[in-house]
Amino acid sequence: MEKSDGRAKIEWASAHMPLRSQLKEELAAEQPFRGMRIAMSIHLEAKTACLAILLRDAGAEVWVTGSNPLSTQDDVAEALAEEDRIFVRARHGVSDAEYSEHLHAVLAPEPEMILDDGGDLVEILHKEAPREILGGCEETTTGVARLRAHAETLRFPMFAVNDARMKYLFDNRYGTGQSTWDAILRSTNLLIAGKDVLVAGYGWCGRGIAMRARGLGARVTVTEIDPIRAIEALMDGFAVAPVCEAIRIADFVVTATGCEDVVSEEALREAKDGVVLSNAGHFNVEVNLEALRRMARSERTVRGGVVEYALEDGRLLYVLGEGRLVNLALGDGHPVEIMDISFAVQALTLRHLVRSGPLAPGLYPVPPEIDERVARMKLETLGVGIDTLTDAQRAYLGLER
Amino acid sequence: MEKSDGRAKIEWASAHMPLRSQLKEELAAEQPFRGMRIAMSIHLEAKTACLAILLRDAGAEVWVTGSNPLSTQDDVAEALAEEDRIFVRARHGVSDAEYSEHLHAVLAPEPEMILDDGGDLVEILHKEAPREILGGCEETTTGVARLRAHAETLRFPMFAVNDARMKYLFDNRYGTGQSTWDAILRSTNLLIAGKDVLVAGYGWCGRGIAMRARGLGARVTVTEIDPIRAIEALMDGFAVAPVCEAIRIADFVVTATGCEDVVSEEALREAKDGVVLSNAGHFNVEVNLEALRRMARSERTVRGGVVEYALEDGRLLYVLGEGRLVNLALGDGHPVEIMDISFAVQALTLRHLVRSGPLAPGLYPVPPEIDERVARMKLETLGVGIDTLTDAQRAYLGLER
Amino acid sequence: MEKSDGRAKIEWASAHMPLRSQLKEELAAEQPFRGMRIAMSIHLEAKTACLAILLRDAGAEVWVTGSNPLSTQDDVAEALAEEDRIFVRARHGVSDAEYSEHLHAVLAPEPEMILDDGGDLVEILHKEAPREILGGCEETTTGVARLRAHAETLRFPMFAVNDARMKYLFDNRYGTGQSTWDAILRSTNLLIAGKDVLVAGYGWCGRGIAMRARGLGARVTVTEIDPIRAIEALMDGFAVAPVCEAIRIADFVVTATGCEDVVSEEALREAKDGVVLSNAGHFNVEVNLEALRRMARSERTVRGGVVEYALEDGRLLYVLGEGRLVNLALGDGHPVEIMDISFAVQALTLRHLVRSGPLAPGLYPVPPEIDERVARMKLETLGVGIDTLTDAQRAYLGLER
Amino acid sequence: MEKSDGRAKIEWASAHMPLRSQLKEELAAEQPFRGMRIAMSIHLEAKTACLAILLRDAGAEVWVTGSNPLSTQDDVAEALAEEDRIFVRARHGVSDAEYSEHLHAVLAPEPEMILDDGGDLVEILHKEAPREILGGCEETTTGVARLRAHAETLRFPMFAVNDARMKYLFDNRYGTGQSTWDAILRSTNLLIAGKDVLVAGYGWCGRGIAMRARGLGARVTVTEIDPIRAIEALMDGFAVAPVCEAIRIADFVVTATGCEDVVSEEALREAKDGVVLSNAGHFNVEVNLEALRRMARSERTVRGGVVEYALEDGRLLYVLGEGRLVNLALGDGHPVEIMDISFAVQALTLRHLVRSGPLAPGLYPVPPEIDERVARMKLETLGVGIDTLTDAQRAYLGLER
Repeated sequence: MEKSDGRAKIEWASAHMPLRSQLKEELAAEQPFRGMRIAMSIHLEAKTACLAILLRDAGAEVWVTGSNPLSTQDDVAEALAEEDRIFVRARHGVSDAEYSEHLHAVLAPEPEMILDDGGDLVEILHKEAPREILGGCEETTTGVARLRAHAETLRFPMFAVNDARMKYLFDNRYGTGQSTWDAILRSTNLLIAGKDVLVAGYGWCGRGIAMRARGLGARVTVTEIDPIRAIEALMDGFAVAPVCEAIRIADFVVTATGCEDVVSEEALREAKDGVVLSNAGHFNVEVNLEALRRMARSERTVRGGVVEYALEDGRLLYVLGEGRLVNLALGDGHPVEIMDISFAVQALTLRHLVRSGPLAPGLYPVPPEIDERVARMKLETLGVGIDTLTDAQRAYLGLER
Repeated sequence: MEKSDGRAKIEWASAHMPLRSQLKEELAAEQPFRGMRIAMSIHLEAKTACLAILLRDAGAEVWVTGSNPLSTQDDVAEALAEEDRIFVRARHGVSDAEYSEHLHAVLAPEPEMILDDGGDLVEILHKEAPREILGGCEETTTGVARLRAHAETLRFPMFAVNDARMKYLFDNRYGTGQSTWDAILRSTNLLIAGKDVLVAGYGWCGRGIAMRARGLGARVTVTEIDPIRAIEALMDGFAVAPVCEAIRIADFVVTATGCEDVVSEEALREAKDGVVLSNAGHFNVEVNLEALRRMARSERTVRGGVVEYALEDGRLLYVLGEGRLVNLALGDGHPVEIMDISFAVQALTLRHLVRSGPLAPGLYPVPPEIDERVARMKLETLGVGIDTLTDAQRAYLGLER
Repeated sequence: MEKSDGRAKIEWASAHMPLRSQLKEELAAEQPFRGMRIAMSIHLEAKTACLAILLRDAGAEVWVTGSNPLSTQDDVAEALAEEDRIFVRARHGVSDAEYSEHLHAVLAPEPEMILDDGGDLVEILHKEAPREILGGCEETTTGVARLRAHAETLRFPMFAVNDARMKYLFDNRYGTGQSTWDAILRSTNLLIAGKDVLVAGYGWCGRGIAMRARGLGARVTVTEIDPIRAIEALMDGFAVAPVCEAIRIADFVVTATGCEDVVSEEALREAKDGVVLSNAGHFNVEVNLEALRRMARSERTVRGGVVEYALEDGRLLYVLGEGRLVNLALGDGHPVEIMDISFAVQALTLRHLVRSGPLAPGLYPVPPEIDERVARMKLETLGVGIDTLTDAQRAYLGLER
Repeated sequence: MEKSDGRAKIEWASAHMPLRSQLKEELAAEQPFRGMRIAMSIHLEAKTACLAILLRDAGAEVWVTGSNPLSTQDDVAEALAEEDRIFVRARHGVSDAEYSEHLHAVLAPEPEMILDDGGDLVEILHKEAPREILGGCEETTTGVARLRAHAETLRFPMFAVNDARMKYLFDNRYGTGQSTWDAILRSTNLLIAGKDVLVAGYGWCGRGIAMRARGLGARVTVTEIDPIRAIEALMDGFAVAPVCEAIRIADFVVTATGCEDVVSEEALREAKDGVVLSNAGHFNVEVNLEALRRMARSERTVRGGVVEYALEDGRLLYVLGEGRLVNLALGDGHPVEIMDISFAVQALTLRHLVRSGPLAPGLYPVPPEIDERVARMKLETLGVGIDTLTDAQRAYLGLER
């Protein structure tokens, strides 16, 4: 390559983000964030770098750190740091202390707005020397759940980007669905067709993972705690069973529940010899690694990102990416176009925050107009037209003009 | 057959309604509706007959009429009328006057509760000599929309059964999806594989219809007015286009929008020669038959339920079941097991109404416990187990015991 | 309707047979069969009637009888008999004697060519007063198997139409696949989504049936005796198990093996309570009805075409269409367009027979040019273009011009 | 890792090759190749290394070289070379001269048998100093085609392993299908759902690629020159169109035709801006790179394995892996289990060759017993049972015992 890998990666992502291109034109002309500082905590790789650049192009000074010690890509971080008015504090494999130091570093310049991924920035702003800020966005299911739990004590307005339809309907189902299997395929080189796959959880992520597993030729069993979702899984043609039962025949297990200890010690005792365990949920708590280590008489890396646990009873169990989010730990995360959609929602939500004037503290939904605007932009970039209601149809439906 | 067709049909349905069987035992012992009268307006066929019998077994005196002049099956009506404490006022192909007369007839005995399908009973109760009743249920999307529009002027409590998860997640997607194609297949004997199918609307019905069309080997184009749903359809692997564009290549069109004039005069002008038009929405307004008749130089029935319109320009267009709900007009409606689920929700909701004591007028959601109860019963009858949260998991999720 | 049902059915089929339309023009002008008699044994319904008419239009005098006592549709037979130069000897529900009488009747006029379906005409011609004929076609897998077994003693040339690619690749997979489920849906009104379906046999029919079952939302288990096909089924995402094991969880069983006693007494003993048994193979020998009757303490028809067997142990087993080819017994057989393709192969093969001059006795394959001609016609009627090799590509592949 | 990467890769593959394990036991005891030399030309990576080791364990001295200058993985070659009685002559990125030198080197020890991949070993043995050898196996479609073209002048027996059912039914469809998308996903990080994919060729490879593209949520168009296969593609629910037409809307193109110049200059002129071009056929001749280079005003690598061509008219076209077999160039080739099946066929075929005693020169099919043996072994390792015919069934089918 003629240039640094990090730069090339950013350019490739950028070239496949049509919404970003369109917004760049609009926001660069308008400069909504001129004179403001934005602090971002993100999985720092090529796609999120594009968002940082977009916010900068829209006038902001941008301070960037990682949202996970292992997801930072150093070549990208380096290329991003070369940009004007973008300041990067992140490194792959930082210690906990360094990680925290970086979070504090991006808050030090007293940003007007934050862009959070999981809730670390919000936590610091609340715990330590709370300061008035204009507000921010939270991108993840987990982060929004944390905000919701403390909505009444929030000291500034936060927007629940994860709950926007253009986010949760696409990111989890199509993004996680594809990238999870991408990561499993590349790290194992095993065949999926004809295999038994167990998907834990039938939320948006689980649906995407199950749908793609079937698309690759697997028989899929779903495990759920919500009886209504369990029946949906059945009607969608999947088998449904409790983890401890389904794991006896599973060749691959993917967890996506948001809960801990899903592949529990009891389940591990039942697991089929040779099973490949992986996690697509936010935290590495779904597969009980502690129990697995207790049960194993030896443990070794057998392929990049694949650890083999040899149990006392002779079974070999494999864990991908140390049970962390497999699509980020062993892959490149969500496909570019999916992130493009999420970023459009985020950028427009931050602009909305600026335009709204100071808002009362609390958790806010993304305004539906932004959702719809982003959807229309996406259809436009795809060259796909849709119908609109005629006046007669609006009247029939009892809608006002 | 050894017995009347109507009786046999009811028995066949009854034998495939495991929730009904289980509830019958429970409600017959408990007799929650003892001494009460229930008026039902329903598509009177074998499955709904089973619901009437269940309510009777639970103690009620039941008055039944149709909810559509064409959906009443006379043999079933006759068999049902032979039951104790069930009074039937319905006939296939009634005139508008007779239809209205029947609606009034089932309200005449001053029922305590109503079970409505589309809103006709509620309308009469409000318009004419409003009377105090305990309340009722409404089953359909359309009926709930009507109730919602007038929620503030409601004179008694009505439960929006359609909005229960166990109703809308299953009935429309899996019920309408299958039964629509069942009706099209049996009435045309045409091949679906390799054909172009246009599905208008990507709500729950549209999703089911599109999914099954693909399952039969068709290429599917979806038309939508909601840009977010349109992108969902794209991501699900369907093409998306406006009606007037997509209809040029469509071999089959199925509407499921809840809106009028979807296959408009303009669309009809673009339609492919030989296209088969059908509707899966509640009212026969989605295909503009009036325009079609104006455009046609002749019209004839070419197969049971199939009318051919010969246009001036030489094209032949076919309409199934006069543009009415094709799965009821040319088929047997929803599959038995789907109705079993809906009926369980309805029966338990009526019991809830009785148990709650007099409720204030208004539109009520089905209590989530009922949804979950029905789901658990369904899983049980299927012999499918699911996991439950451990105490540690509840703690992790921040849930109270 | 303005005309007889039989006539309308023929017209509807005819209007959806684009290859027939195109061939009619060509053959009517050319009159290849002028002055010849053709005897046909077919499932006499609207689609096969169209073939008889096409052969007549191509110059022949056509004598038609049924190929199965139950598949003849009387209204169609009546309408067909009104045609010039077409003579019909068939009636629904004939006795064995009458059936045989009809076969003899269509051979009495000493036809030059025969069109056989299952081998009955060929058998008579061989057994009784063998006569020289120009030759004929055999349409079915079963019939071709019978011919192959006696190929050396054949007294005239027969073409194995079933082995033409345009026949076996489409008829069985897409035709049987769709029409089998059409028949099951309309005769049971049961839900397929979420059910367990057992497909016996993974030949072309079995593949089609399994593919469509999945398309309707079922979990599918395949049973096979060929280990290689069994692995194909696995890789296609289906479960594979022996009949006696799979039937324990099956809600629906469809046999398509061409073999007898597939659902054997042993399998029936294992069958799940409530299972619906049906057959898509040529003969009604795949479900062991004799054993079932022995095991049952009572038997009754519970819905048109559905017989319930109440076993001593309390289980209820259901059989569709007396175990006969379910798509013909309870439905309208193959979709129109599929038959159109097969008929084009047959008509062109008969013309080839005439043009070839007298051929030596024996079993002949359909010439590949006919297969390709029919495929190109089909693509043309669909308006679908395909590429052709350039000279350079032919050279690359080592093909002569 | 505790050991060399090459060694770990071989162990990982080995652990997921159940047929190899079973055969190893059998062949190590039997030593069928004791005292013999086998020369192998293969894509030298972890899986093929396992085959070399198996043959060695069965008694042979094994000489190994690559079958493509770019597919050799140096770490694996190194680890393999450390094995007893295995001699490796291969290096990634060898020059043409060196490549040829290596081929000669493995033939120098005068092997009794060869295992060829593409035909290079056979060509040398014929052209240069032809020598008597016992015979060999050819693995690829392309190699078998070359053998077939010169079958009459073959100087020794060669077995067409590619034509074994257990090879061509699985390797191409499920192996290429999965590994092609694995390679595209990991090298682009782009979303497949909602995209238009053009698959050139509907042979076994093309079917697999199309099936998996759909499984990932794409709309798929197939291009074919065989009209019958084109109709199969249609009936399977894909669109069909000529390359130059389909490429206008394609986001991804994958060629799998075995022919040259499929994405021709003319097609490139029509290609959609941003299209990603890749090849899954044996040779890098399907995408016309020469034309593309002529049309481009600049060319640069934008991501590992991804080259961007900037055309004069402003469009950007991307080519993966220089148009070489994308699953090997940018991925790890076929999944392990698929290769395990192929290798079992190869090992048993070589044993058959030894056992048969000297065979006449010529091209031989793999004996059907070997196909069936391998299939049964595979089912056994999966724990999947199948039915066998009863005596009565054999009699019914007219089969001898």
